[in-house]
Amino acid sequence: MKEYPLVFRITLTLPRPHSNDKRADVERLKDVLSLNSLEIPLCVMKELPDVLRTQSFKTSPLIGRLQKGYIMIEPHSNSEPYGVAVDIGTTNITASLWELSTHQMLSRKSIVNPQIEYGVDILSRIHHSMLGGGEQLHKSLLEGVNSLVEELSGETAVPERNLCACSIAANTTMTHFLMGLEVKNIPVEPYIPVVYSPGVRIADEMGIRINPRGVVYIFPNAGSYVGGDIIAGILATGIHKSEEVSVLIDVGTNAEIVVGTKDWIMVGAGAAGPALEDGILSSGMRAEDGAIYRIDIKDKRIVYKTIGDAPARGICGSGVIDLIAELYRTGRIDSLGRFTNKAEVDTQGEEPFFEVTNVNGRRIGITEREINNFLRTKAAMFTSLYVLLHDLGLSFSDVYRYYIAGAMGSGVRIEKAQLLGMLPLVPEDRFTPVGNSALKGAEAVLLNGDLIKEAEEIRSIITYKEMNTEPEFMKNFPSALFIPHSDPEILK
Amino acid sequence: MKEYPLVFRITLTLPRPHSNDKRADVERLKDVLSLNSLEIPLCVMKELPDVLRTQSFKTSPLIGRLQKGYIMIEPHSNSEPYGVAVDIGTTNITASLWELSTHQMLSRKSIVNPQIEYGVDILSRIHHSMLGGGEQLHKSLLEGVNSLVEELSGETAVPERNLCACSIAANTTMTHFLMGLEVKNIPVEPYIPVVYSPGVRIADEMGIRINPRGVVYIFPNAGSYVGGDIIAGILATGIHKSEEVSVLIDVGTNAEIVVGTKDWIMVGAGAAGPALEDGILSSGMRAEDGAIYRIDIKDKRIVYKTIGDAPARGICGSGVIDLIAELYRTGRIDSLGRFTNKAEVDTQGEEPFFEVTNVNGRRIGITEREINNFLRTKAAMFTSLYVLLHDLGLSFSDVYRYYIAGAMGSGVRIEKAQLLGMLPLVPEDRFTPVGNSALKGAEAVLLNGDLIKEAEEIRSIITYKEMNTEPEFMKNFPSALFIPHSDPEILK
Repeated sequence: MKEYPLVFRITLTLPRPHSNDKRADVERLKDVLSLNSLEIPLCVMKELPDVLRTQSFKTSPLIGRLQKGYIMIEPHSNSEPYGVAVDIGTTNITASLWELSTHQMLSRKSIVNPQIEYGVDILSRIHHSMLGGGEQLHKSLLEGVNSLVEELSGETAVPERNLCACSIAANTTMTHFLMGLEVKNIPVEPYIPVVYSPGVRIADEMGIRINPRGVVYIFPNAGSYVGGDIIAGILATGIHKSEEVSVLIDVGTNAEIVVGTKDWIMVGAGAAGPALEDGILSSGMRAEDGAIYRIDIKDKRIVYKTIGDAPARGICGSGVIDLIAELYRTGRIDSLGRFTNKAEVDTQGEEPFFEVTNVNGRRIGITEREINNFLRTKAAMFTSLYVLLHDLGLSFSDVYRYYIAGAMGSGVRIEKAQLLGMLPLVPEDRFTPVGNSALKGAEAVLLNGDLIKEAEEIRSIITYKEMNTEPEFMKNFPSALFIPHSDPEILK
Repeated sequence: MKEYPLVFRITLTLPRPHSNDKRADVERLKDVLSLNSLEIPLCVMKELPDVLRTQSFKTSPLIGRLQKGYIMIEPHSNSEPYGVAVDIGTTNITASLWELSTHQMLSRKSIVNPQIEYGVDILSRIHHSMLGGGEQLHKSLLEGVNSLVEELSGETAVPERNLCACSIAANTTMTHFLMGLEVKNIPVEPYIPVVYSPGVRIADEMGIRINPRGVVYIFPNAGSYVGGDIIAGILATGIHKSEEVSVLIDVGTNAEIVVGTKDWIMVGAGAAGPALEDGILSSGMRAEDGAIYRIDIKDKRIVYKTIGDAPARGICGSGVIDLIAELYRTGRIDSLGRFTNKAEVDTQGEEPFFEVTNVNGRRIGITEREINNFLRTKAAMFTSLYVLLHDLGLSFSDVYRYYIAGAMGSGVRIEKAQLLGMLPLVPEDRFTPVGNSALKGAEAVLLNGDLIKEAEEIRSIITYKEMNTEPEFMKNFPSALFIPHSDPEILK
């Protein structure tokens, strides 16, 4: 069967009414469309008779998928449908706008999650919500998503009526905030979300400002700590269809590790701190024009490259890894991440600061505390990976493919990450960068609605391992705080 | 399996969340409820976590049926659900309010269809709609239904939140007006309605003022001339489950005849004029207190009985049949319905008028033109029945049971109707009065949601025979205008 997007346009030629064929308009259309279980909202039904007759019974409705069955969004459209995929992170929201029939991306944008106003990390936002700020947080996030969608549709001149599909991947808490659901049970033992599978919902009910009859797919979660973003990432990489063991490493606010095959999937996560996300490092930024993404230190000279060869404005994830790896390689920091040569760092401020460059008076660099944060993140990530595999009786080399996603994904140099003990010492060709895998998963569903079923299946086979309470994790974590590790043999 | 009403309350004891059972609230509840395909609106999902915890995970949600699957209307209710059944006729709207779990009717009321303001008959209302009054007619009808529902719930003190089911039987045009659908194609060849099966819809979408999350079932139609009222009537009588041939005669605005068994159902209808509905005869009224329902003429003395033995206020359907039969039996009208003795009638007004009684200056009786209208109705009804059976190769005595519904149904004396040639001359025990069969069908679905499936099946096996364009009807109709018939042999 042909792959249909989340919303598709289909041109139908209906037999004209006749004294021998008196079928009602709705049933006449349903018989030709022959989709199992098609919902027709009353407002669409109201438009149908005139549309059919104006179009001489040749009509091109827009049909959206539901969890089960379909919904008629427009009785006729002259335009192919458009859709947006959205990845809602705790720190950033990224969205892309697509023409669904041609699989063409027209635009992509990111904004800072406006909830930041109420707290940088998730826990402080949940706390704010528990103190009565839940509606504020819900509205703030919804408004953020809507403003991003409007920016995209404004820029591409896609009218709201034609924008009628939305696919959203977010962690469990963000999904709950977006839907206006209670979050207070999420961070408390035994960590119970309101819902696993919100499924496909109508835009109007969700408050998402696309065609109000449009459909919104929200990726399911597998508990408070395995969000829809992870499930979207699994879907994007295809781990759930592989015979061999694959790993997905996504370092955002948490260090999330997925290990799995087509038969089983295990997810481990532990709070790591958002060391690699922009807005966290004082010099951090997204991988966009002006971001330093490559750093080499040759003797005393720092050589760097920026995206688009623009004047440097900050450092993105891969640049941070390069920087710390080079500081370590050249002996400027020790295996605990402390600066060894105070003469080279600025100790004027509150924190020792290593300057990479200074552009128009703006100093770009890193502090010792920021290096320390990074090491905690890399330790959490590596330890999670180690413990998960160890638990499954697997060694690093048993893993056929390592997908590297998230802040670390774009343009990272594997050997630098290996030098720091972030990634295991397996051949470099086993690593595949996948960028924003959550957004890619959301885009995949947008373009092929059949994948909803796959996403829900992934959810149902996931086993979650909480790292923060896992004795093996506790035991191994401190050693991984060293560069590369207090026991380098473990990296192999 | 137990029969569940359209909305039911079910008490569930959920396992409490635990470190070994971290299921989300929604899925925890769904697993215990184990209903195939349960929709949970976002607003219900928002209330669920607090409800579960306040109720210590023992909750009693209200569940409504959808066409396929179910919907959660309330996450918890202290009260059993209530529902209203509605029969929308062109002239009257009748509704009853039920406690669904106990099958107890708490109240029943009728009002005049407020659309009367825009035209007594359906065609003039459709005409008004085509001249731009569609929204007016839609609002007028909806407001009428809502005011009736409010009267019922006010009187019985059922709060809106607990009133969460509605079942509506109406002819095709009324159904369209109620839903705000285009009616202009209904009276024009080839008579195409917008929809056959509106199915179960949400109260909020319909604008019906019960619990906005409540469900509204609208009986399907089998074309412009076989409305949901007829299908509800078939459901109420059980014709569609009988091995033997049954007939349902419903004389409202049209003379509608159903002939069928469990394997096939044929419906014939022809415009007859609403001769038996109250509001049509100058002295006509509903069968309620003060209505004359029995009339005998003994020599020159008119003996009558009223409902509730109240002072006479008018004549209901069975009274009209009695009156005309007695006028004919005593020779006061001839076989063409003309008054034979001008001395006994009042010829002062525009029309010769026969007075039955005069209560406080209000004259109750019938005019020659009204008798004539009645004869047209009875001719249409009898001819439709004759032609339908004849067509099927059946005689009157092949019919096992005659169900008499509608304006003629309550308290009609069969021998009087037979005397007029309204009903065939078969033994009296084959006739069963069924009152308002459309309302009864609507009530049946309210109390047993499984019947939705039966109603939709009935729809799909109906064959419709248009009488007004049927040569056999045309040929036989004039002879049936006589009392009892120009060829009385045909009545046997």
